[in-house]
Amino acid sequence: MQSYAEISADEHDRQQALYGPLTEAIRKLVHAGIRTGADDDTIRRAQAAIEAVTADLDSRHHDGPRTMRHAETGRPVTWADPAIGLRNAIAPPLTIEHTEDGRCWSEFSLGAPYEGPPGRVHGGICALVLDHILGEVASEGLVKPRFTGTLTLKYLRGTPLGPLRAEAWVDRTEGIKAFARGQILDADGVTVEAEGIFIMPAWARPAV
Amino acid sequence: MQSYAEISADEHDRQQALYGPLTEAIRKLVHAGIRTGADDDTIRRAQAAIEAVTADLDSRHHDGPRTMRHAETGRPVTWADPAIGLRNAIAPPLTIEHTEDGRCWSEFSLGAPYEGPPGRVHGGICALVLDHILGEVASEGLVKPRFTGTLTLKYLRGTPLGPLRAEAWVDRTEGIKAFARGQILDADGVTVEAEGIFIMPAWARPAV
Repeated sequence: MQSYAEISADEHDRQQALYGPLTEAIRKLVHAGIRTGADDDTIRRAQAAIEAVTADLDSRHHDGPRTMRHAETGRPVTWADPAIGLRNAIAPPLTIEHTEDGRCWSEFSLGAPYEGPPGRVHGGICALVLDHILGEVASEGLVKPRFTGTLTLKYLRGTPLGPLRAEAWVDRTEGIKAFARGQILDADGVTVEAEGIFIMPAWARPAV
Repeated sequence: MQSYAEISADEHDRQQALYGPLTEAIRKLVHAGIRTGADDDTIRRAQAAIEAVTADLDSRHHDGPRTMRHAETGRPVTWADPAIGLRNAIAPPLTIEHTEDGRCWSEFSLGAPYEGPPGRVHGGICALVLDHILGEVASEGLVKPRFTGTLTLKYLRGTPLGPLRAEAWVDRTEGIKAFARGQILDADGVTVEAEGIFIMPAWARPAV
């Protein structure tokens, strides 16, 4: 297992309660930026107000580690990640659940900021979701370091915006390689299938 | 060619001058949200200020079409897209250049919001970039509708945060399928290779 700095359950909950709503507010602003039809003065005032908030937030930077380990659950905590990060407004964010038999799943909803063709999720966003959940299942919940080697995506049909589910499991492992599979589903079934090979980096391999 | 509503060069430039800086300000806020270590009061004040700006922007929504055609260049304009959208703070955004021989390339820079492993771009963000640029080259600059069928990504090594280049070209076409290839490069060469099959939807095929 990788050694991460530990974050206590209390500190985890404190940060989640503080940064979760801030980032959620930024997500809604991203959305508003796309669809606003406000007049020019309102847009310029909004820009100035946003720049002032950014300056306030940038007045002090945190210097904590990128990934910590939750003291009670043992699971990695990665606030900044663009797929799962509570503190990253680019992330939906995915909350990935782990079943006892080693599978992963996540239920989430994607709105206008993730739209590619009209009413549908951008194919590259489907790829981001699947790359992440396959990587997480292949690395056993991020506790064993494994990096993406290859990823193959098969788009069966358009993925609608709205509520979705992603699933992933390890098909087999061969030495330093884990072969993972997964899919995105809407209410009518699978929309995108994925297959990936994830590789343990040299520094993490057992000495021989 | 798909028929899009036309946007005049003047109106394009007006919207770009108005919305570009607004979205750039939101991008910087996303970044600040990840790295801030400001005290709790500052965080809560920031959240309230962001919510007020969002309410102002949401006071009126634009009802324009999702994609327009630039009256002078003839190229599609998609402000909202999560890869290339000037108005989408999730997008880096990519500016995709088209060469006369039908290739596409883009130079861009990815910072902390796109980070997966420490100092490196999240594999799923590489997938988003490649899915988009391969799709754009396969659809001849988005003027011929083609949707991703399969996409295969081969991660040769980690892609560093910072300045990057993406390239794509069509390897061959077979009937309704276009076979596209592409890659992401840093200063030392290729980091990720991609191959995709893009398919013309039934409604866009010539009648037989």
